[in-house]
Amino acid sequence: MTTEAYELYTISGAPRPWRALLALAAKGLPFTPRLLSGQKKEQKEPAFLALNPRGRTPVLARGDLVVTESIAILAYLERAHPTPPLFGSSPLETARIWEEVAVAEHDLRDAADAVIGPVFRGEEVTPGMHEGARRLRAELVRLDGRLAGGAYLCGDRISAADCFVFPDVRLALRAAERAPEVMRRLELAPLADFAPRLRAWVDRIEALPGYELTYPPHWR
Amino acid sequence: MTTEAYELYTISGAPRPWRALLALAAKGLPFTPRLLSGQKKEQKEPAFLALNPRGRTPVLARGDLVVTESIAILAYLERAHPTPPLFGSSPLETARIWEEVAVAEHDLRDAADAVIGPVFRGEEVTPGMHEGARRLRAELVRLDGRLAGGAYLCGDRISAADCFVFPDVRLALRAAERAPEVMRRLELAPLADFAPRLRAWVDRIEALPGYELTYPPHWR
Repeated sequence: MTTEAYELYTISGAPRPWRALLALAAKGLPFTPRLLSGQKKEQKEPAFLALNPRGRTPVLARGDLVVTESIAILAYLERAHPTPPLFGSSPLETARIWEEVAVAEHDLRDAADAVIGPVFRGEEVTPGMHEGARRLRAELVRLDGRLAGGAYLCGDRISAADCFVFPDVRLALRAAERAPEVMRRLELAPLADFAPRLRAWVDRIEALPGYELTYPPHWR
Repeated sequence: MTTEAYELYTISGAPRPWRALLALAAKGLPFTPRLLSGQKKEQKEPAFLALNPRGRTPVLARGDLVVTESIAILAYLERAHPTPPLFGSSPLETARIWEEVAVAEHDLRDAADAVIGPVFRGEEVTPGMHEGARRLRAELVRLDGRLAGGAYLCGDRISAADCFVFPDVRLALRAAERAPEVMRRLELAPLADFAPRLRAWVDRIEALPGYELTYPPHWR
């Protein structure tokens, strides 16, 4: 195995590659973000399609190694760099973490997609957005409840669950910074009012060494 | 750990619980399928919601243990019963297997959902079904290509990739048995004509010890 840094192909602010960036940071691995322009659709250009024919991020690369799909990248990193573990150290911890990963991938992602994207684009609020907001808020409240049991979503240390959930929570906060009135009407802001533990957990993740390198450049 | 058999809550023919049943069989673990009626919406009744508040299958249970979400169930089984491995024995094998799992969960599942469900329900063929059929066929052809490298999707032994992919391939075959004309028009049948290795792989999976217990009861 080489010791050169991993490269992680990402689109600024896209939730799925952000998960992989957070996992690299959580494992303390050196990495270089490779930024593609989503606006220019660089992920559909031949140079990138050669890495991932499906034309989507994230892609992890190092030397000859290429890994696509956020869950595959996290599973690969866990196998290649077991310490610190991101998938627990007992079968039951592993199960709880993967459950949160699956729920983040489906329920949280779908709900966020239905409401946060349109808010960023300044669209009129529709019944579909209200429905997405209702589902998103329910997920955020449930996640807040999990944090009653520890500093992180699956106990006292960061896990893959945190890496998967964080981007969508941070996107909701960002939407509240950009469109506070709309997010308030959708009952998704202020986060600290209905999910105070989750709001504090965001600060905890942001204090993680290496976090700065995961932060969407176009948000600065 | 107790030695009693696992229970696996399933709906006959539903692809996600079928993955978990196949994993139990592939690991040679004793298990009892617990059949819920999807028609009666038993997965939304209080008795089942007590196991999984999201009201969906699969759920793995044994004693006090309850695990939801197919990817979490497979990851749990791997951790609790490492041999034979379903997620490879090197970081690279792990990556390739999880990539296939992710693609099966998104691209294959979405494409199959867009076309196979409507075919089973006898619906008129729509442009949306044609589009789903095109994507499904492309996935099936790609999977056929992978089998040039070994008897199973990620090498010479069964892995989680096979468990995740099989149900949707078998559903497509079932649809071709029930509605051969429509499936032919959609260019999804006969499977052996455009994906002969995949067709042979179906027989290989069906010869797996324990497979009979995974087979949808209402298909008999």
